[in-house]
Amino acid sequence: MPVVLYHGGAAANSLKALLPLFEKKVDFKSHLMALINFEQHEPWFVKINPRGQVPVLVHDDRVLDESTLINEYVDDTFPGMPLKPSDAFGRHQMRIWTKFVDEYFCPALSFLGWHAMIKNAVAHLSEAEFEAKVARIPLKEQQDKWRESAKQVWTPEQLADWRRKVRTSIERIEKGMLGTWMMGDQFTLADVSCFSMLINMPQRYADIVNEKDSPRVIAWYARMLERDSVKQALAIGHPGSRFVQAKAS
Amino acid sequence: MPVVLYHGGAAANSLKALLPLFEKKVDFKSHLMALINFEQHEPWFVKINPRGQVPVLVHDDRVLDESTLINEYVDDTFPGMPLKPSDAFGRHQMRIWTKFVDEYFCPALSFLGWHAMIKNAVAHLSEAEFEAKVARIPLKEQQDKWRESAKQVWTPEQLADWRRKVRTSIERIEKGMLGTWMMGDQFTLADVSCFSMLINMPQRYADIVNEKDSPRVIAWYARMLERDSVKQALAIGHPGSRFVQAKAS
Repeated sequence: MPVVLYHGGAAANSLKALLPLFEKKVDFKSHLMALINFEQHEPWFVKINPRGQVPVLVHDDRVLDESTLINEYVDDTFPGMPLKPSDAFGRHQMRIWTKFVDEYFCPALSFLGWHAMIKNAVAHLSEAEFEAKVARIPLKEQQDKWRESAKQVWTPEQLADWRRKVRTSIERIEKGMLGTWMMGDQFTLADVSCFSMLINMPQRYADIVNEKDSPRVIAWYARMLERDSVKQALAIGHPGSRFVQAKAS
Repeated sequence: MPVVLYHGGAAANSLKALLPLFEKKVDFKSHLMALINFEQHEPWFVKINPRGQVPVLVHDDRVLDESTLINEYVDDTFPGMPLKPSDAFGRHQMRIWTKFVDEYFCPALSFLGWHAMIKNAVAHLSEAEFEAKVARIPLKEQQDKWRESAKQVWTPEQLADWRRKVRTSIERIEKGMLGTWMMGDQFTLADVSCFSMLINMPQRYADIVNEKDSPRVIAWYARMLERDSVKQALAIGHPGSRFVQAKAS
């Protein structure tokens, strides 16, 4: 039963789907895609996921999307260390974290990231070339996001509000972490979700994630970096990282 | 082990949390709150849920919020008919529906509902009285939503886009329904989530939900109305309904 993960590299939602596969030592094929080149909207991929988004897990010819729900499936399906609490209340509390990441933390961080990166990343395309790429995107919301970030239409107020949400998110994690891991003694999908968003934040958001303001987050982040799953995922790299580094240097 | 559900009546997220309790015949106390009178932001309730939102389930002195996650907990905790598929892929597909409701369908419908109702519902308050109510709301996002809907600041473009999303949501449900119920033969939390949003739509959005454009939705909606759980929940009523009817008449 072949397992394939189509993903965009070791950051955000793609990292989120990579980690449980490594944690549970699933024998899977990693298919890294160049999101910045719109590869996820090419016809061959839209045939696999009509929504034109990654990550996507293919298992036994079944196609699964939505990283948070992929992770529930992976934990339920494959042997290895359980990544959810064994009691129903613990699972509820864990899912409060994964839902918070999906509905609050990730969207805010994502808009800021797109605003910072997309304009330069598509600067080599003519207006017509860019529009041709955008026209292939299946979801209207994603079309809007590409256009808006390429044209930098977001107002200072919107950017400030997303930044406030990112700061609030870190404060919530700092305060809510129950022990060695988010849920206490057990490493769970809550750690996976939060860490996948935080991965580049100590470098890019040092005014928010730092020893003084979020000491528990910093210590937990260091513990996360020691995990084999994180090392394996980071070894895959992220196509965007090189771009950001090149821009910063 | 006493079970209490604090909720705002038989619509949207509160209906969503009521239905599984009735489906599974849980012995619970229904605590109906007057959301339009800001009761959920009163100190006694914020002590129970610091986020000042309903529905909230209290079970064995544990406090659970977020209706979608309450429902997963209720299904895992209480005996009675299972409301999730027994296989991991089925659960993934079911959660795609509950997630879509939370992240796409419900927000669009909610903004439209607030825009239509809140201004008149708070018209009896002076500006100072209104601001005093809003100041007690724990979440900034909720404060913004009350102020914006009371002042009708949303643009025609925003309203049109939410309406487009509501229409897209119904099209997705019409197309994606697998059988008698959303997931096929089994009644699940996907039916609960979708129906709780749809509850007033055949009346209020007859241009979108109707025999011609969404025949499968209409037939499923009629089947839903026949369920004991739905009858029991609707018997509780909804404080907002009277207001809307009064306004329409």
